[in-house]
Amino acid sequence: MTTASVCTIGDEILIGQIVDTNSSRLAGALNEAGIRVSRMVSIGDEGNVIIESLRNELKNNDIVITPGGLGPTKDDITKAALAKLSGSGGYVENEVQFSIIHRILSSRGLDVLDSNRAQALVPDTCEVIPNNLGTAPIMVFRFPEAVFGHSAALYALPGVPYEAEGAIPSVIEDIRRHFPVSSIIHRNIMTYGLAESALAALIEPWENSLPGDIHLAYLPNQLTGVRLRLSIYSEDSEKGAAALEEEIGKLRALLGDKIYSLSDDNLQSAVGRLLKEAEKTLSAAESCTGGEIASLITSVPGSSSYFLGSVTSYAVSVKEKVLGVSPDVIAKFGVVSSEVAAAMARGVKKLTGSDYSVATTGLAGPSGDGTNRVGTVWIGVSGPGGTKTYTKNYQNDRKRNIDRFSATALDYLRQMIESDLNS
Amino acid sequence: MTTASVCTIGDEILIGQIVDTNSSRLAGALNEAGIRVSRMVSIGDEGNVIIESLRNELKNNDIVITPGGLGPTKDDITKAALAKLSGSGGYVENEVQFSIIHRILSSRGLDVLDSNRAQALVPDTCEVIPNNLGTAPIMVFRFPEAVFGHSAALYALPGVPYEAEGAIPSVIEDIRRHFPVSSIIHRNIMTYGLAESALAALIEPWENSLPGDIHLAYLPNQLTGVRLRLSIYSEDSEKGAAALEEEIGKLRALLGDKIYSLSDDNLQSAVGRLLKEAEKTLSAAESCTGGEIASLITSVPGSSSYFLGSVTSYAVSVKEKVLGVSPDVIAKFGVVSSEVAAAMARGVKKLTGSDYSVATTGLAGPSGDGTNRVGTVWIGVSGPGGTKTYTKNYQNDRKRNIDRFSATALDYLRQMIESDLNS
Repeated sequence: MTTASVCTIGDEILIGQIVDTNSSRLAGALNEAGIRVSRMVSIGDEGNVIIESLRNELKNNDIVITPGGLGPTKDDITKAALAKLSGSGGYVENEVQFSIIHRILSSRGLDVLDSNRAQALVPDTCEVIPNNLGTAPIMVFRFPEAVFGHSAALYALPGVPYEAEGAIPSVIEDIRRHFPVSSIIHRNIMTYGLAESALAALIEPWENSLPGDIHLAYLPNQLTGVRLRLSIYSEDSEKGAAALEEEIGKLRALLGDKIYSLSDDNLQSAVGRLLKEAEKTLSAAESCTGGEIASLITSVPGSSSYFLGSVTSYAVSVKEKVLGVSPDVIAKFGVVSSEVAAAMARGVKKLTGSDYSVATTGLAGPSGDGTNRVGTVWIGVSGPGGTKTYTKNYQNDRKRNIDRFSATALDYLRQMIESDLNS
Repeated sequence: MTTASVCTIGDEILIGQIVDTNSSRLAGALNEAGIRVSRMVSIGDEGNVIIESLRNELKNNDIVITPGGLGPTKDDITKAALAKLSGSGGYVENEVQFSIIHRILSSRGLDVLDSNRAQALVPDTCEVIPNNLGTAPIMVFRFPEAVFGHSAALYALPGVPYEAEGAIPSVIEDIRRHFPVSSIIHRNIMTYGLAESALAALIEPWENSLPGDIHLAYLPNQLTGVRLRLSIYSEDSEKGAAALEEEIGKLRALLGDKIYSLSDDNLQSAVGRLLKEAEKTLSAAESCTGGEIASLITSVPGSSSYFLGSVTSYAVSVKEKVLGVSPDVIAKFGVVSSEVAAAMARGVKKLTGSDYSVATTGLAGPSGDGTNRVGTVWIGVSGPGGTKTYTKNYQNDRKRNIDRFSATALDYLRQMIESDLNS
């Protein structure tokens, strides 16, 4: 199988100044194309380290992709390292890239300086794939079998994320022309409401009976639950897809409504899709989640077609005055209670005129109210068929409690809409 | 200088399914502690690859930190690899970690499964630092000089980002006890309202005149602005601190109110501190930011003492009915306008009875309204002295636009409260 290594260059990554998003995007694209990424490495802006590291990656992989290190100030170090690594005798100006540089700078009303012109200079050992999105060209260095014991290629890409992303299709096309590439198929199964270990125990017999060519991974996340990923390498994409589909069928039988989607990335997208399908609207009333539920819902593009709005009722006065929660109910049951969660859900539904609503009241911490345990939440979900309440307790820090409260509320909401749609 | 390598383990990183944020956070923390990170490597869940890679990193570094691969499910084979690498003869149950596992699961009303209990089992070759935030322990493997030619240590951390982050202080403390680490003093200067390049241009002469032992780093972030970090290696902490203080004085003269704090981590903490100082309260009305401002404000522990609540008015009807924005104003100026931003800010201030309020109306994208450019926001800030509005345009994707809108709104609010306090 053709393997690749992604090797990013830049001191700013090693001191934690920036999060390297290029690597994961490149790895994802390579993986989707059926190329196995064996390693990702980040190194600093040091000539010898660059040469030694790239040589090592080329020894162990067919393909090395190296984004970054080609900016105006670092240009010399990386390019010189690549020239040395590839045994280049000198530089040549690439005319196509030079005309792109000229066009980009002219469109910004800038003159082409010597330093700009220098970006079109490449070692005479490389082929150039023009970069239409920026000034630095994409350089391809090919190494015959004699050099590393196998035929290898190194692709040097610009580090600006949108330029690196723009380079992906031509790089993958080039790889396909030069290396044997098999197909991989992935399917995601999004679950919520079971911890990773409980989920694993529940599906253990199924997992043990998985065919050898199907691989399962658990990807837990506070906000989206546990994502199960099934993968198969298959030259016959139809057969591979069918094999995965069969296993998903078995999982559905095991997990029921713990599975919230086979397509969406997260609960708020699933809720949005269901609301669109049902042609219904939504509102939210938040106390302990402080706006996070609204923020999650509105993170979905197009959410304005079903989300009317929300009230964050941090103060008791806002619960009473804006949401219409009765002071008597608060006095009798306390702010953190099933009754107040239900009253908030009903109140915001009435206030906004929405079909569904979700509400939270609880204690995210660190300090408590002297009555309820920190980490307690009451969730109210209201819809055309009535109002339901639920309670949970999470023992995390403030941020994680708020995340869990929000995700759990979205999941109960999802269950109500789904159940209404199916009835 | 003591060097470290961060080696993350997990197929999900290599297939590009998740962005590895642990590495950059760990690298940043190590760097801040005066430990140089020489490389970051990501490898897959394969026993032999893990052993070989870790061995290679240990050969070339004093310290290897490896987050991930310690979950309770089957795809986690890191522990077996660590046992083999360290020549372990067997596993022992760590009682402290077992009691933590027990506490965490009980608090969630869950039984302790065999797979959970197994998480407290560690190779007999390691020391354990208890992980109070999750079920997987932090394991420390020490290698005497004979093994890799220098004394080395490997720290295996849980991969869940907040658990990995929580492990940092104890890991750095342990490193300090076992390796020579020189003293480094940092000061943070939090700025907002200037892009990194503009900020750099403005302070260039000052930066060029910095004493050789003082290092400056730019740490830009969508939500918190550009953090400037001044560092000095100094065995004399008083002298070092005084040298940094002198430079901060010069920076203050250059940047004025672009500096929002020398102590807070972010704008919402600065706003909270100022409100407490002024003994005033706050509310918010959000359209395009969809709850993110409220969510940021309430992420600060103790925010209930000054934050009364907010309205997310996604639908026009909510702007009119709940916030009292006049339909005539909307008809005349449009929803995305200075007038509506001001009316929303005044409306929520009146509704909640707060002293200050902040409001947003705009287009986060991807789709527009046919009139305003996508990325446009109007911000209203209202206080005891009146109401002000501002507009900005950002050309990012939806999520980044919402982040910028929210942070910019918080910064204008911060400026108003600060100015009121100083007058």
